[in-house]
Parts: sequence; C-alpha cells; structure tokens
Amino acid sequence: MAEIRTMKWEKGSLFLLDQTKLPSAAEWICCTGHQRVITAIRRLEVRGAPAIGVAAAFAMVLAWREGNSSPEAYAQARQALDAARPTAVNLSWATRLMYTAARRMQREGLTAAQTDSELERLAVRVYEQDIVRNRKIGDYGASLVPENAVILTHCNAGALATCGWGTALGVIRSAYAQGKIKMVYADETRPLLQGSRLTAWELLQERIPVTLITDNMAAWVMKTKQVSCVITGADRIAANGDTANKIGTYGAALSAQAHGIPFYVAAPASTFDFTLRDGSGIPIEEREAGEVRAFRGVPAAPPEVPVFNPAFDITPADLIAGIITEYGVLKPPFTEAIAGLETHILKEDPFAWKA
Amino acid sequence: MAEIRTMKWEKGSLFLLDQTKLPSAAEWICCTGHQRVITAIRRLEVRGAPAIGVAAAFAMVLAWREGNSSPEAYAQARQALDAARPTAVNLSWATRLMYTAARRMQREGLTAAQTDSELERLAVRVYEQDIVRNRKIGDYGASLVPENAVILTHCNAGALATCGWGTALGVIRSAYAQGKIKMVYADETRPLLQGSRLTAWELLQERIPVTLITDNMAAWVMKTKQVSCVITGADRIAANGDTANKIGTYGAALSAQAHGIPFYVAAPASTFDFTLRDGSGIPIEEREAGEVRAFRGVPAAPPEVPVFNPAFDITPADLIAGIITEYGVLKPPFTEAIAGLETHILKEDPFAWKA
Repeated sequence: MAEIRTMKWEKGSLFLLDQTKLPSAAEWICCTGHQRVITAIRRLEVRGAPAIGVAAAFAMVLAWREGNSSPEAYAQARQALDAARPTAVNLSWATRLMYTAARRMQREGLTAAQTDSELERLAVRVYEQDIVRNRKIGDYGASLVPENAVILTHCNAGALATCGWGTALGVIRSAYAQGKIKMVYADETRPLLQGSRLTAWELLQERIPVTLITDNMAAWVMKTKQVSCVITGADRIAANGDTANKIGTYGAALSAQAHGIPFYVAAPASTFDFTLRDGSGIPIEEREAGEVRAFRGVPAAPPEVPVFNPAFDITPADLIAGIITEYGVLKPPFTEAIAGLETHILKEDPFAWKA
Repeated sequence: MAEIRTMKWEKGSLFLLDQTKLPSAAEWICCTGHQRVITAIRRLEVRGAPAIGVAAAFAMVLAWREGNSSPEAYAQARQALDAARPTAVNLSWATRLMYTAARRMQREGLTAAQTDSELERLAVRVYEQDIVRNRKIGDYGASLVPENAVILTHCNAGALATCGWGTALGVIRSAYAQGKIKMVYADETRPLLQGSRLTAWELLQERIPVTLITDNMAAWVMKTKQVSCVITGADRIAANGDTANKIGTYGAALSAQAHGIPFYVAAPASTFDFTLRDGSGIPIEEREAGEVRAFRGVPAAPPEVPVFNPAFDITPADLIAGIITEYGVLKPPFTEAIAGLETHILKEDPFAWKA
C-alpha cells in the first residue's frame, strides 16, 4: 500500500505536495517562510481542514524563526494565517495552540532558541497526532459500516486532506481493511474537482473499489445503487452539531435523508468550534467567479456571466446520524454529546484549548 | 432581442447550430442525409428533447429523399433515428408522425414526389408549431411565477433545446416580459455543461438576470436565496407524471421539496409517453466515461477510474407541483390530468398519435 503524504518537515522547511496539480503531476512546494504557507492555503495547494491546521502549525514555527518572536509580531503572523481561509476552524485551532504555547514558554523563561526548538517539537507532534487520530476515527467509523457497504463521499477527506489516512476516507480505509467495502461512489466536487482529482486517485492507489460520478448524480445513485451510508469530512462543527463542509454536502445530506440513508461526518476534535451555538455563526468563504466559469483555464461559460461561488455550505445537525471523532462516535442529541466531548478533551487532550 | 435559432431548413438541407461548440463559437452543421442527423443527435450537436424531435422530423424528409420510400426502408430509417438516443420520447414521437403520414399518403395514392413535398410541409409545420407551442407553455407557466421571482433551473430547456423560445426558459422569458423575474440561478449541469454553456449564454443574450452556479450549490441557493420555484424541461413524462430529465433534476426536486419550493416541469404534449404507466419503464441512457473524467477535454480524473454516467434521472410525480404544457398546467393527481390531456389531444391535436 503506497503511503500518501501531503507534507513533510525537513531541515526547517515545510514541503507541501501541490494538490492543485494532482493527479497529473506530483510536485512539492518548499515553504521557507510563513507567507508562502499562507499563499499555499489560499491557492488550495494544501487543503482539507486537518491538513490546513497542521500546515499552519509548521507555519507558526517558520514565523517564529523569521524573527516574529515578539508577542506583537507573533500575534500578527497568527492573524495573517487565520485570515488565509475563513471557514475551516482547524486553522485557527493550530495557530492558537502554537501561539499560546510560545507565550507560555516565554512566561516560563525559556530562551528564544529553546522556544524555537520546543515549537518545532510541538508542530511535529501535531503532525504525528493527526495521523494517530485519523486512525482512531477510522476504527470508530468502521464499526458503523455494514458488510458489503456501498458508500458515497463528497470532496476529499482523505490522506490528502490530512497528514495521512484521512477522516471520511480514513473510515473507508479502515472498513476496507475489514473487508467491508463493496463500492465507494466519489462525487467529483465542482468547481475544483477534489473528488475526481484527489479522492478517486487515492482510492485507486489502494485498490479500493471506486466509481466516479458528477455531483448531480448523487441523488440518483442513492436511489438506484443501494447506498449504505454517506460519509464526509468537516471544516467546522458548531456546538449543536451543525457542520460546515465543502459546498454540495448539504444537498447530499438532504438526498440521504430522503432515501433513509444515514449521513455521517468524520472529523477530529480540532474541527469543533465550541464557541458557536449553531451553524449560523460559521463564516462561508466565497471564492472567485473564474473557478465556476472555467476548469484549469478552459472556459465553460460566457466570461461575463455573474457567478455565486460559496466554497462551503452548512448541513444542519438534524440531517446528521453521527459525528465520528477520535474519541468515539457522537450521536444525537448533539448539543449534549458535543458538550461532553468538550469536557472530556479539556481534561484529557493536550491540544484542547483552555480559555 | 436577438433571436436564437437552433436549426434551419434551407434548400432541402437541415442546418444545425453545433451546440457542442457554444458559447465560444457559433458553427452550423449542414445535414444533407438522415445519417448526419443521427450523428448530430448522438454527439449532442443538437440536443434538448423538443429540438431532437424536430430535427428527426426533418431527418425523415431527408431519408425519404435518399430513396427510402419503400415501407421497409423508411421503417429502417425511422428505427435508426429512434435508436440515436433512447430517453427523449419526442424523437420517436416525430419519426412516428412522419412515418405514419408517409404511409397514409401512399395509401391515399399520392405519388412519391407528392409525398416528398407533403412530408417537407409537415416537418416545417412541426418546426413552426414547436415555437408556437413553446409560447403557449411560456404564457401558462408565467401565471405560476410570482412577482420578484427567483427561479432555479437545471440544464438547458431554452430556445437552444427547442426551435425557439424554449420550455422552462420559455416560461422564464414570458415571466420576464411581464416584469416578474428578479434572478435566475442556472445550474452548470455537469458533465456536458449545458447550463453554463447554453442557459447562461441565452439569458445573457436577452439581459435576463442570471447567476451561474455549480450543480452542488443548488440546495444551498434554495436555502439562502429565497428561491420562488424550480423549473426544468423534460425528456419523457409517464402517464402518472414521473418525469425523465437531465441527470441532477431528481436531486434538485428533492432539495426543492425539503425547502417547500414548488418544482415545475415545462414540456409540450409530445414529451408525454401515454403508454408508460410510470417512470420505471423509461430507458435511461448511459454515456461514455470520458465525459465525466474530463472537463471539456481537460483531464480531471485518473484515466483509469471507473465511472457511472447516466444522462438522465427520473423525478417521481409526487415531487412535481405542476406540469406546464401548451394545453395548460397539469396539477396533481397527474394520472387523471394526463389521461385528460391524452383524451383532449386525440380530439384536437393534429400531431397526436392515434393508435
């Protein structure tokens, strides 16, 4: 089984696999400063909420080394990273983790050099923990998957969206290892085609049975292909379970409900925004019209046509059958389950943010 | 207002606007024989159920002139045309109309030359009637559209899908003429992008406000943009109202239902298949994988990934609020309304097929 890597930290630089070029080319981008990471996040060269979070953690190491060790400068670097993309909360989760760690080290009297080395260790740990936690998500999620499962997924919540294994695709990988997967239907996920470019590619690499469809086929596939469940990742989950994820997730969840098919979200604890009562507070990034009018520079529409291009939508909690985390599967009512998760990680999880 | 034409009959040849090249180029294909029309239908150079029907009527004139005037040869030409695309029933409606007319003329003792000229007149009448009937569909449909309407449509059921005016876009044109249209959201309609290439272009031509979205944004637009109604065309309507239309229509209808938004189908009487009790008997064309693996020829997926590519889906009658025809708006229960339509057209419509 070929190991899919999305980033590597080598000799003090962050190397990112350029996901805009996949699957036709595998090129690495070398980030020696945090600004290049910001650009990579904006351009979706690195994408997927968990991967964005880890890349941001490394970017905070780079920022420190670039001389941003004063509290003001470090706060500025953090803010610039947070602003790169607004919806995925893993981004600000990671920068907050690094920022508060640096401040604590300074308070504890560590030298700048000591802090530098501790921050690097912390970012590497965030990276390693991402894979460990995805494996746990995979195991918990696989228990929800029946034998001979037909699964539909949207966008890419795979190894490429994380540091390895994946969230939604992590569940599929774990279930496949248990011999449970008959077929995975992958939505192509317009406008940027993460499903056809990334998910289809990942599953083919590991010989997991996959069938590519356009997004507008999902409802018909649910009607005619005995779909067992729908599983997607998440970019931000509010305290009541409302979930922001790639545009099209909401429509897929509505179709799943209409067919009595359980819809699951798979995401690590870092995807929860415990401060938001519900999804109405989640900012939805709108991207440029050119993404919809064309694909890879090939025009598909009149150049002057107005476009609406939200990158995400909100799936209300009542359409979600379960949220698969590294701490187990949360079931409705989510407000209680998520409050319980928050209490638990505040005690147990070294990465939990303590206000 | 620029008039959009999809086909012209000139000096015994059928000229088809090559819709695969739109909107970047407006090229005409000259069909001097019925085989070229078959190729054009297969390649979607002419597309849209009503337009396919009219093109097939002219193809039957061409077939006659190519020496297929013996009953066997003419039946063969008819069969070859019917097989070009399986789902849209307007195709076999038109070939049956022409075939039975030719047989009747022969029974009545017309010469081959007289039959030739009568067949041409009939095809031209089918062409002209298509526009006349679309105007009626537009007027009936406009009465369903509220003031300041926000309408969502899928695929292209416009002038380009017909001989002019359009069915779903005919309703939008008529409602726009009445000052009722605030915004039209056009689904791009993967894989072949009839929404972005054709619908967006048509509406821009006439300065009707349009916003282009990807198919997977439709549910979120319904949730957030005060959509008044969804209107699409149809490729075949069964006796109970189940409707085959471009893939993605079913998902849009499910989303409309979830948001309490009425979903309307606009189609001429020639789209009804009174012989089919329900949608389960409608054949669904599956097209080649390359359409999904690529985006206008640009590869978007691993070349070896398996693909499911149904060109149509079936929207069950219970998701449909009304079917807008040239004889008025049919309302549920559709089985009664459609039986009434059949009875009416058998008496009144010279194009109705009498078994």
